[in-house]
Amino acid sequence: MKRAVCLLSGGMDSAVAAAVAKAEGYSLYGLTFNYGQKNRREIVSARRIATWLKFKEHWIIRVYLLPESSSLTNPEKKIPTRITKFIPSTYVPGRNTLFISYGLAYAEALNAETIFIGINSIDYSGYPDCRPKYIRQFQKLINLALKKTISGKKLVLRAPLLHLSKDQIIKKGLELGLDFSLTWSCYRSGEKPCGVCPACQLRLEGFRKAGLVDPLVNQTEERET
Amino acid sequence: MKRAVCLLSGGMDSAVAAAVAKAEGYSLYGLTFNYGQKNRREIVSARRIATWLKFKEHWIIRVYLLPESSSLTNPEKKIPTRITKFIPSTYVPGRNTLFISYGLAYAEALNAETIFIGINSIDYSGYPDCRPKYIRQFQKLINLALKKTISGKKLVLRAPLLHLSKDQIIKKGLELGLDFSLTWSCYRSGEKPCGVCPACQLRLEGFRKAGLVDPLVNQTEERET
Repeated sequence: MKRAVCLLSGGMDSAVAAAVAKAEGYSLYGLTFNYGQKNRREIVSARRIATWLKFKEHWIIRVYLLPESSSLTNPEKKIPTRITKFIPSTYVPGRNTLFISYGLAYAEALNAETIFIGINSIDYSGYPDCRPKYIRQFQKLINLALKKTISGKKLVLRAPLLHLSKDQIIKKGLELGLDFSLTWSCYRSGEKPCGVCPACQLRLEGFRKAGLVDPLVNQTEERET
Repeated sequence: MKRAVCLLSGGMDSAVAAAVAKAEGYSLYGLTFNYGQKNRREIVSARRIATWLKFKEHWIIRVYLLPESSSLTNPEKKIPTRITKFIPSTYVPGRNTLFISYGLAYAEALNAETIFIGINSIDYSGYPDCRPKYIRQFQKLINLALKKTISGKKLVLRAPLLHLSKDQIIKKGLELGLDFSLTWSCYRSGEKPCGVCPACQLRLEGFRKAGLVDPLVNQTEERET
């Protein structure tokens, strides 16, 4: 059975990307990273998604980054509440490059043929490491970097949501039967999503455009009544 | 003062690369990786080299790889004793890609302008991630991957030993005043280098060609008499 490494943050996008891999018949091997993010709640979600999608293996890996440089890791920097055209303070230097590199080390060791990542370039936050040309360049590096690839075998980095908007991602997830109540997008941790950070705004707007209600919001309301 | 991230294994090459950075006036920030290698003795050497070269910071980072796939990490696989034309069993999937990725995350967080890596493509072991075109490709990725680089600032990946033979590397290190007794090249750990693994063979041959005696061998002999 063909194998895929899925980079799973615990958010919607990587969960949908993993569901795509599952639907294509891959057996799934997951990596989730604890890099000191404020939204460590997403790691709990990643575990639930991995269980739900019947991953063969799922590793939670501690990654060591300097916390100062991002509002997502520095306790003294506030998470923003506005989506801007600029790269926001939640940007984490080198994050996707490091995560994909871990993915390729794991993929070669497993003899997996594909790495799935949930990044998208439409309703995203202006991060340089979420752009199509970044992914294309990384593929070129993979083609040179590994014993596997220089001996003619393929390892393909796939970002199946790269050109989808958030509402399209949600619809695709629902088509694949994904339970979005398992996922966590908020940049904070807590009982319920904050609703005001950029990640919450993009998620809520996605559900609204898709004509749906976020089950996380729903769940919370049900619990409160 | 301009800053450089130095990837420091504890071996000769990365020590010489760091000495080059020092001589060029950089303040040095080091990363050393504990990935379960049999030659964990090299990490002790990395600490000594970092102290000796007066690194501003030096982090030992735990990296989690599947140990099975390399004789350098799998206790059931023997370290080879012959240098072949093929990629040897000591090859570790994705290793340099992961290490350089860590380097760039650290470099951007520090606002460093250069990453130094000690790889060389002449007296090496046939690893795909030690070739000049691999480094060139990684530079192209760096140029797209970071907030820093897409905003026009540079982060340069430098491999100053890329085209040097082992004896040339040793001579360069000596010119820079490097104490090679601080370094460790052997693929095993122990009181003294095994002398028979490919890394020992390349090192000993390098010293021989340079008309010198490896101080590690010398030290041991002195201790034994």
